[in-house]
Amino acid sequence: MPDSNSKPLTYADAGVSIDEGDRFVGLIGSAMRRTFGPRVIDNPGGFAGLFRLDYNEKLFKRNYKEPVLVACADGVGTKIKLAAECNNYAGIGVDLVAMNVNDLVVQGAEPLFFLDYIATGKLDPEHALAVVEGVSRACKECGAALLGGETAEMPGVYAPGVMDLAGFSVGVVELDRATDPERVEPGDVVLGLASDGVHSNGFTLVRAILEKAGVDPNDTHPDLESDKSVGDELLTPTRLYAPSIVKLLREYKVKKIVSGMAHITGGGLEGNLVRALHDGVDAEIQRGSWAPHPVFPFLQSLGGVEDEEMDRVFNMGVGYCVIVRPSFADSVAAKLRKSGERVLQIGTIVNGTGRIRLS
Amino acid sequence: MPDSNSKPLTYADAGVSIDEGDRFVGLIGSAMRRTFGPRVIDNPGGFAGLFRLDYNEKLFKRNYKEPVLVACADGVGTKIKLAAECNNYAGIGVDLVAMNVNDLVVQGAEPLFFLDYIATGKLDPEHALAVVEGVSRACKECGAALLGGETAEMPGVYAPGVMDLAGFSVGVVELDRATDPERVEPGDVVLGLASDGVHSNGFTLVRAILEKAGVDPNDTHPDLESDKSVGDELLTPTRLYAPSIVKLLREYKVKKIVSGMAHITGGGLEGNLVRALHDGVDAEIQRGSWAPHPVFPFLQSLGGVEDEEMDRVFNMGVGYCVIVRPSFADSVAAKLRKSGERVLQIGTIVNGTGRIRLS
Repeated sequence: MPDSNSKPLTYADAGVSIDEGDRFVGLIGSAMRRTFGPRVIDNPGGFAGLFRLDYNEKLFKRNYKEPVLVACADGVGTKIKLAAECNNYAGIGVDLVAMNVNDLVVQGAEPLFFLDYIATGKLDPEHALAVVEGVSRACKECGAALLGGETAEMPGVYAPGVMDLAGFSVGVVELDRATDPERVEPGDVVLGLASDGVHSNGFTLVRAILEKAGVDPNDTHPDLESDKSVGDELLTPTRLYAPSIVKLLREYKVKKIVSGMAHITGGGLEGNLVRALHDGVDAEIQRGSWAPHPVFPFLQSLGGVEDEEMDRVFNMGVGYCVIVRPSFADSVAAKLRKSGERVLQIGTIVNGTGRIRLS
Repeated sequence: MPDSNSKPLTYADAGVSIDEGDRFVGLIGSAMRRTFGPRVIDNPGGFAGLFRLDYNEKLFKRNYKEPVLVACADGVGTKIKLAAECNNYAGIGVDLVAMNVNDLVVQGAEPLFFLDYIATGKLDPEHALAVVEGVSRACKECGAALLGGETAEMPGVYAPGVMDLAGFSVGVVELDRATDPERVEPGDVVLGLASDGVHSNGFTLVRAILEKAGVDPNDTHPDLESDKSVGDELLTPTRLYAPSIVKLLREYKVKKIVSGMAHITGGGLEGNLVRALHDGVDAEIQRGSWAPHPVFPFLQSLGGVEDEEMDRVFNMGVGYCVIVRPSFADSVAAKLRKSGERVLQIGTIVNGTGRIRLS
């Protein structure tokens, strides 16, 4: 019998199991199928996902004359690290979808499909399936098909137990209905849609704050006023604004009353809302017009973080902005509330130079 | 003056520099623009990339009646680890594009656009730019626009110096021209297109072989018959079959003489070619019909790896297969050769049960 040194080297010895991988791929199939609408062409074993545009059929509710595909890629940042520390992967798949589809709808697009990339040192099927279940649930909620993805087992790049996630999504918008910073006018109203907490940005700072303060994310904390552990509270998934926004835009098909939008991610309100403006206007934002989500004062005092840094890193309670013509502000806010959003008027557009003025 | 413990905590202290990130995003802009055709809508500062389908215009050379979007996601596996060990990031961006667009064209699609995800512990702009330059070059070669991407700095998930890459691409195919395993018939000929080496699969085994044999990837090796170091030889990028295949399919617009295709990745010839077959046919492959790329006997003898394991993990010299009607085999091979491919007839389709028979 050969000794271990002369034993032929196999892929499994080197740390990768093709069989395990195949089994996992089979298990996620049902999570994917739950998101399939009639436009998805089933293609088991295929090399890529297939999605019919169906221009000639009734299935596609709107008729696109000049369709523009909208695409983006994003991850969940180091929030995945906190999920691992808390052994809580229930929401991180929702984060992954939200980070992408919220960006898509900013352009006025309706999401069509989504693909994920899950990379890990050693595949833990239970964790990976929890991620995919969240991805599937969020895709369904947004009307996006989970069309495919890749699960990569990469020993040596990722330590055992470490996982990273990336997501990609594609949507479609009619050319003359795509949002355009040039449409924003002085007098327009900025509506702020409440966030559900930290969402998926700034977690490197969050984790540094917890570490500095000696807070174990698996413990509860009196200042948080929550039965949940600090970690579980911080892991609350990124809010999926896509369904409310898509519904809103469909209800104003003719009038372009939405002049701009912004998804508030890394860079905070200022760093993201500025992307919705042209050089001739400023957004005047009244900081006192909304109460920050309670998680932010908690983190700020725990870490002794300065106001400016908080504003630059976190959404501070406003996760998405909609800039609308003033005469439609109330009706737009009412429609968004009917879709379940908490909406406040947080500012107005004035003549300027493309900047955000926080007051 | 405050001491370091009471100093307010910032995002930069925690290991993430938003300014550095912004600077890098600016630098990659020109690499992206080089890939933009007339269908890309410039959207600097936007939340997502915009790509016009232009159904009504002459720009889109073919007229799609029932367009199907084709999408896939893939990474480069642990080849990125070898790139880091050899400090050679010149080709890994090409690998990333090839892994995706080669899968797209298997479905009969022509690539439209690509997005990348680059994650690292601490952004090394030089390495990341080398990756993006490779991505841009490969996208241009395939006629795909590099429409966007995400660069994530994730201390704690990735060690300093460690990087991971994921890619995502979208193409389009006319519904009745999408490849379909049902079209494969007994008598069809299997053409093998030569690979350029290991491509981007099996690198966990490659690295285990080098380690077991005590071979430093930065050294040359007499058995490799190459002036390059072992690592640089192994890092030869994945061959981009997409341009040759797209050209071939355009030249046979009416006749469906290509009945199936396969991109040979993880799982080897058997694991991938089988995906092109239906249950009523087998592919009889003559192993002696091609000489393995020299890197495979080198790796096999270095690691003492068994034949079956080599076949299961590596492409063994054939990176892409085209199944064609027998009367067109010679003309298809000639066209592919004219596009720069090395093509051999490696087998035939016979009645069977959806299996590969290697002889």
